[in-house]
Amino acid sequence: MFSLENLCVVLVQARNPLNIGAAARAMSNFGARQLRVVNPYAPAYREARSAVGAADLLAHSQQFGALAPAIADCSLIVGTTAIGHREVQHPLHLLAPGARKIRNHLRKGRVALLFGSEKRGLSNEDLSHCHWLLHIPARKEHRSMNLGQAVAVCLYELARDSTHSKPSEHTPPVRGEKPATLETIHRVSEVLLEAIERSGYVKPRGGRTAEEKLRRMIRRFQLQEADAQVFLGMLRKILWKLDSTGQPAKAAH
Amino acid sequence: MFSLENLCVVLVQARNPLNIGAAARAMSNFGARQLRVVNPYAPAYREARSAVGAADLLAHSQQFGALAPAIADCSLIVGTTAIGHREVQHPLHLLAPGARKIRNHLRKGRVALLFGSEKRGLSNEDLSHCHWLLHIPARKEHRSMNLGQAVAVCLYELARDSTHSKPSEHTPPVRGEKPATLETIHRVSEVLLEAIERSGYVKPRGGRTAEEKLRRMIRRFQLQEADAQVFLGMLRKILWKLDSTGQPAKAAH
Repeated sequence: MFSLENLCVVLVQARNPLNIGAAARAMSNFGARQLRVVNPYAPAYREARSAVGAADLLAHSQQFGALAPAIADCSLIVGTTAIGHREVQHPLHLLAPGARKIRNHLRKGRVALLFGSEKRGLSNEDLSHCHWLLHIPARKEHRSMNLGQAVAVCLYELARDSTHSKPSEHTPPVRGEKPATLETIHRVSEVLLEAIERSGYVKPRGGRTAEEKLRRMIRRFQLQEADAQVFLGMLRKILWKLDSTGQPAKAAH
Repeated sequence: MFSLENLCVVLVQARNPLNIGAAARAMSNFGARQLRVVNPYAPAYREARSAVGAADLLAHSQQFGALAPAIADCSLIVGTTAIGHREVQHPLHLLAPGARKIRNHLRKGRVALLFGSEKRGLSNEDLSHCHWLLHIPARKEHRSMNLGQAVAVCLYELARDSTHSKPSEHTPPVRGEKPATLETIHRVSEVLLEAIERSGYVKPRGGRTAEEKLRRMIRRFQLQEADAQVFLGMLRKILWKLDSTGQPAKAAH
């Protein structure tokens, strides 16, 4: 994960204690530590101090009476927005490319990421402090995200390790996943063929067609070697049972 | 944005109305429409029906008494997890590469994305229905995310514009290749279980473990619907033969 040590999450006029707590929890999940709240609704801020797994982070959060002092030590200020008309004067970046810009900056300096109040978002006055704006792409019919969820999505994208884009490197190897050998697949096909012949599903020695069809089907199953061996054991036992107690398939017709 | 029309978000035993509402809101933000809740805490489900901007989605959500019927029409079942030791038997993918796999599947079939209860996540029984597990990379000291936030982060990644992704994602599905539905896979597992019980490979009513193991194995076969139907026909015929000519498995011991 990319280190978010230099990131300040700034909640401006948050009203809901659950959202403040949720923001803190997401910060803890993704490794951001500096939470700053500007003019919160006081009871909301007090109540938020009990958020699951983020009590320590909340206890170390800082409270400010205005936005300017809350971001005074930051060298890049980014506001989040669900896009309105008023913001056209600001450069706007979608989350993924915007996050790349922020990560570049975090390597050398402190970045403030601003989230506005649940109801109105960031004010024009707040926006005037921002270098540019960040937008989470969402459906145009319902762009406004819940505050806690917006913080989580932004931090997830920011903490994204650049190497995550290569699936092969980061997907943990699946235990014991090894494709079945052709030999095993042939054996499975053979035993299954005998079993379905014995059951009367196909005629015995029904010719190459049935056999080939069956083998192609078994190949499409994309068996793992370990599974194929288990499956083979089952089929052999079934075949043994058919042989030991059943009558020849022909007689059953 | 990538269309999440074919995605079902399944909340299993959600306890908090705010989380159900938050999941619905994130779905509305990112264009997923099918919300299914399994055994919710009843008052939570009732209260959730007032979530901001997602009332319509909640009104059309479906409630189920068990997981199996909630996912019967889906052909890929993915569980979400904060990673525990119990899940090592399942393939595990990080969110970004896992989302690519899910998008590939969404082009041709329905996918169920499962989220467990706030407290305990998905049970072993729930996990036995899953093809593989999805994990949101988070700080190892605090991996457990809030339910509503986890849903938002997953849907954000899933809806990620395809222009951010690799060209290989645009590979059209092979014509006529349609993954088997969960219902068909269950039927295959059931009939095969009966057959191996009858053959003496496992003891009859050997308990949940044998059944779950078998179900997981059959799922790993990655059956196509057409093949699964043929396979089912074979197994039924074999079972019929075992029943009509064989003695009860118990007597064979």
